[in-house]
Amino acid sequence: MRRQKYALGLDYGTNSCRALLVDLSDGTEMASHVFAYPTGEDGILLDPKDPNVARQNPADYITGAIECVKGVNRMARKSRKGFNAADIVGIGIDTTGSTPIPVDKNGTPLALLPKFSKNLNAMAWLWKDHTGHSEAAQITEVAAKMRPQYLAKCGGTYSSEWFWSKVLHCRNVAPDVFKAADSFVEHCDYMPALLSGDTNPKRLVRGVCSAGHKAMYCEEWNGLPDKAFLSKLDPALAPLRDRLFDKAVSADHLAGRLSEEWAAALGLQPGTAIAAGAFDAHMGAVGAGIREGVLVKILGTSTCDMMVMKANRKLADIPGVCGIVNGSILPDYYGIEAGQSAVGDIFLWFVNHLVPDSYGKTPDAKFINLAKAASRQKPGEHGLLALDWNNGNRTVLVDVRLSGLLLGQTLHTEAHEIYRALVEATAFGALTIIKRIEEYGVPIREIVNCGGLASKNPLLMQIYADVTGRPMKISRSDQTCALGAAIFGAVAAGREASGYDSIKEIQSAVSGVRTTVYQPNPANRKVYAEMYGLYHDLHDAFGTTTWSGRLNQVMKNMITLREKQRV
Amino acid sequence: MRRQKYALGLDYGTNSCRALLVDLSDGTEMASHVFAYPTGEDGILLDPKDPNVARQNPADYITGAIECVKGVNRMARKSRKGFNAADIVGIGIDTTGSTPIPVDKNGTPLALLPKFSKNLNAMAWLWKDHTGHSEAAQITEVAAKMRPQYLAKCGGTYSSEWFWSKVLHCRNVAPDVFKAADSFVEHCDYMPALLSGDTNPKRLVRGVCSAGHKAMYCEEWNGLPDKAFLSKLDPALAPLRDRLFDKAVSADHLAGRLSEEWAAALGLQPGTAIAAGAFDAHMGAVGAGIREGVLVKILGTSTCDMMVMKANRKLADIPGVCGIVNGSILPDYYGIEAGQSAVGDIFLWFVNHLVPDSYGKTPDAKFINLAKAASRQKPGEHGLLALDWNNGNRTVLVDVRLSGLLLGQTLHTEAHEIYRALVEATAFGALTIIKRIEEYGVPIREIVNCGGLASKNPLLMQIYADVTGRPMKISRSDQTCALGAAIFGAVAAGREASGYDSIKEIQSAVSGVRTTVYQPNPANRKVYAEMYGLYHDLHDAFGTTTWSGRLNQVMKNMITLREKQRV
Repeated sequence: MRRQKYALGLDYGTNSCRALLVDLSDGTEMASHVFAYPTGEDGILLDPKDPNVARQNPADYITGAIECVKGVNRMARKSRKGFNAADIVGIGIDTTGSTPIPVDKNGTPLALLPKFSKNLNAMAWLWKDHTGHSEAAQITEVAAKMRPQYLAKCGGTYSSEWFWSKVLHCRNVAPDVFKAADSFVEHCDYMPALLSGDTNPKRLVRGVCSAGHKAMYCEEWNGLPDKAFLSKLDPALAPLRDRLFDKAVSADHLAGRLSEEWAAALGLQPGTAIAAGAFDAHMGAVGAGIREGVLVKILGTSTCDMMVMKANRKLADIPGVCGIVNGSILPDYYGIEAGQSAVGDIFLWFVNHLVPDSYGKTPDAKFINLAKAASRQKPGEHGLLALDWNNGNRTVLVDVRLSGLLLGQTLHTEAHEIYRALVEATAFGALTIIKRIEEYGVPIREIVNCGGLASKNPLLMQIYADVTGRPMKISRSDQTCALGAAIFGAVAAGREASGYDSIKEIQSAVSGVRTTVYQPNPANRKVYAEMYGLYHDLHDAFGTTTWSGRLNQVMKNMITLREKQRV
Repeated sequence: MRRQKYALGLDYGTNSCRALLVDLSDGTEMASHVFAYPTGEDGILLDPKDPNVARQNPADYITGAIECVKGVNRMARKSRKGFNAADIVGIGIDTTGSTPIPVDKNGTPLALLPKFSKNLNAMAWLWKDHTGHSEAAQITEVAAKMRPQYLAKCGGTYSSEWFWSKVLHCRNVAPDVFKAADSFVEHCDYMPALLSGDTNPKRLVRGVCSAGHKAMYCEEWNGLPDKAFLSKLDPALAPLRDRLFDKAVSADHLAGRLSEEWAAALGLQPGTAIAAGAFDAHMGAVGAGIREGVLVKILGTSTCDMMVMKANRKLADIPGVCGIVNGSILPDYYGIEAGQSAVGDIFLWFVNHLVPDSYGKTPDAKFINLAKAASRQKPGEHGLLALDWNNGNRTVLVDVRLSGLLLGQTLHTEAHEIYRALVEATAFGALTIIKRIEEYGVPIREIVNCGGLASKNPLLMQIYADVTGRPMKISRSDQTCALGAAIFGAVAAGREASGYDSIKEIQSAVSGVRTTVYQPNPANRKVYAEMYGLYHDLHDAFGTTTWSGRLNQVMKNMITLREKQRV
């Protein structure tokens, strides 16, 4: 009998982390364990005086690794007789990002030192920390003048969520922390280093996913931004560059091997391969089976739309697309990342703030009844049109200074009609991204959805199929991020250990889609084509400075459509 | 001792009618009595198959007169020793409209005849009956070609709510009723005729308020629309013209004197003067003290904005203003009627459909808590901007094919913020009307508000003051329509009976404003001036065919304003 081989994926989300044990022969998800970060509010350290603050305690990451892996071990032993943790050939790790952690010379997070243990600025700076918004504006301004090529790769605007905005803000508001920091390490790079027993920031392996998408790293300009540029932002950043890194790698690289100490703590075999780290969405795309021609949509509070294209072909900068980084998803492929700033978050906002209790007492009950009532409507029957910009627009406008819009309400408009209009607005936003990517020469032949909304919201999936005119497939796994991480653990372990040569081979074995596929309904598609035209008018009128035209038709056409669809 | 003199106002609303007894020496409202129409749903006969149907049983009007006047008599005797109903010198009557009633040769409503007692089409056609919408479109089309002057006086579009749309629809769908109808009489004309004991449609006094605003009556073209025009609509309308009327009068005219029979039924003195009838909003404006330079705003589910201008001066047609009719409010003055299609109705819609129970269990409780929370906000702090078009736009766009719009919502926008934005939107709509009227040479020196919202919604009143930059006064009486009717009763009675020569004199005695005046706050006014500029951009972009421009500034300026106001 062939010996069983497993890989372990560790997935660090915003509020909790999860370990997933995958049988490499067929992708069976044998065991998983979730750990909610104990520090702060839902795992996030907030500042009541500043809503932009979002930090995390690095100690939670460490406790999480131990609890999750031990939990998975226990569950696997129960569910499969003769399970042996020594058969776990590799570990992959994904995290949120950009989530940089200030560390000392040994790579120890400053937050773990007594001196800084209560200092918010010494914690991990979570991806959604926006305290560096004025620094982001400064970086965009300086780059636009000095290094426009830096901006071209990240959609034209540097974000407050990204590495340099956070580091520079730390320098500005917490010079003591900045001074004590020998380096800043992304959460996704810190974890593999930690488990391998060597967190020395000079030596630890940095992933190209975080480096390329968030820290302006690119081989075209020899890595990180040059010192002249950094000095212009702040003279203290130039010397920091020497204490960061020269080279970043894709996640199929080995970051290290499990140390004796950590093997004992986790109950695993010392020497187990650990892959270089990357972001959750990028590894999730791999878990969902990404390959050329496949758009993977990760649908959650916001969305990530991921594509890959062979890096030996010429790929134009796609205006308005968040980032194009060689190797950020698959080695030797450009990783193309687009996304919508709010999708599930818009529905949550609506349910929490604007849905009366006649739809249900709890948010869950409200969602069920809203969907039930909205499903009974034909497209356009509500006469409503919305823009999905409650949290700005990431792709293709790259503009946080936009807002939501709802049009078409009468004296009879009901909450479930608005809910449907909001779902449709996010679908129109998704179609805008698809069109933009294809216009720049990247054909989309298949769409695979993952994330909570994909499996739990059939109304949304059908509307997406009808609006885009494309079948909507759903990833078989509910945990594509952790599954993707496990795939990288296996590939980093090498053929001898894992039995596989390539990511593609492992994907064939462990990834897949469900049998349920949402097919576009031709009649609905026609109505949505008309509504998309009007959405597009609003999109360009409110979202661009170059638009000129008429808007008088928007309300009238929606009223005409409403009357037609109600007959 | 001088003998007390009283006047009686009878006010027929949509769901109930009311009688009010007024002491003519000082306007003391001595007694009032309300009667809810017993037939149908809240007094309205509906058709479950057609939401456009809204009819009323004329029998309810008659019962209402008896119950209300008897009720007032009882209350007056209790509250004032020696009260003598013989001291009631005159009766005035206002009703909704256009509410035409098909009547036989004697002026008896067909609905009161056994043959038609169950026939919806033989009932009174309530103002908000919209069954004649295609007939309205036909009338607009034919008038635009043949008689553009007819349209110019009513804002450019003939409404389904008006006289000829209803009569023509009756002809189309109920030829038996149309054939049996010797004439059609407005509710406001029927009541004075009834009480005077002579409802003969050839003789009964017709009011110019209903004739001019709803039936295209104008002395410029010798009364009602000519036969050639009516024949073009339907050959049966030309002979009907002969059975309608040649002359319509203002409400200071005597319609008749109380018959012996009705005096006995009501407990009043036979021979008491009865004024010609008019609509509620028009008599309400008089009750609120209208005179040149005063804009009276009647704030309810929708609003009426009333002005007068001396008829010996030249007044241009004001584009987009519902109607300009000589004598419709005050004799020898042009009555100018503008209005917003929905104001209170928008708030009701929002509270009933989109406010969670965390604001309260009942609509009333929700209103209180929304207002409380919204009052704590500074203008623009919510970052929202709305268009008040959920029920179309009556003035100045005269377009029912428009809809609501809300812009600026984030992931944190709360219901009370939207409530405030909706109140502001109606204030911007009100300011648009004010500007239009003044642009055409009718200066507004004072604004008096009446109706439920004026006395019960201080947040709204303050916002209206801040948005318009003008003090908002509130009519002293809560029942300005019935008070206005009483004023007309007194003036129709003549000097000898009432002690007064003119409406102006009676207004000085009985009308007035409260001591509370909402003064514009200069800081808020400045913010609202900026927001009104953006509202105006949206207004013209979505509401006109001639607009061209940019809208990119709207969301951005609202975000900037929000940030400024939150500091």
